[in-house]
Amino acid sequence: MPLDPAIAARLKRTADGLVPAVVQQHDTGEVLMLAWMDDEALHRTLTTGRATYWSRSRRSYWVKGETSGNLQHVRSVALDCDGDTILLKVDQVGAACHTGDRTCFDADRLAVTPA
Amino acid sequence: MPLDPAIAARLKRTADGLVPAVVQQHDTGEVLMLAWMDDEALHRTLTTGRATYWSRSRRSYWVKGETSGNLQHVRSVALDCDGDTILLKVDQVGAACHTGDRTCFDADRLAVTPA
Repeated sequence: MPLDPAIAARLKRTADGLVPAVVQQHDTGEVLMLAWMDDEALHRTLTTGRATYWSRSRRSYWVKGETSGNLQHVRSVALDCDGDTILLKVDQVGAACHTGDRTCFDADRLAVTPA
Repeated sequence: MPLDPAIAARLKRTADGLVPAVVQQHDTGEVLMLAWMDDEALHRTLTTGRATYWSRSRRSYWVKGETSGNLQHVRSVALDCDGDTILLKVDQVGAACHTGDRTCFDADRLAVTPA
């Protein structure tokens, strides 16, 4: 069974059929990472409760944490006003980032220097 | 003056030269919206402290809130581990969404129904 057609009809995809998914820790509000979904990845996420993405580099589906154990248990999923972004609220087991950092945004802060 | 070459060298862009920017309210943690930046938009954001994006539909730069008054005052900017996503923490004046909602993710929640 594919993605609910009523949801599929609302999605606006990039040229390669993908939608960016922002992943947020449900209770602390930390933005953990950004990943990509196609219709099938969204369908699997909604029907299994485990965050599932499309890997652009490996060209395959991946259940986040399947090999590392750092699973993402899905608490809620929402589309944005244009249907071109997904917000996933999850309960993240361990580190979200493959570097071992809690989030993928911990290591490279840029200076904001208004003139 | 263009974007700092040391930052530009770390960015990984889509085929059309863009990087997705996740925009988060700095104190509440709300994810407000997702927008797109090219090098120049990131440069303007870092050097003005006002969130500036590239509009894919209008093919032009836009300072968020320039017409609506709903400005985003930038508190911090970070790159993710791969340099392919930007996280902007802002102080959002008024509504972030063009619909008038506080965030772009308020209106379309999807059901998560594990079997």
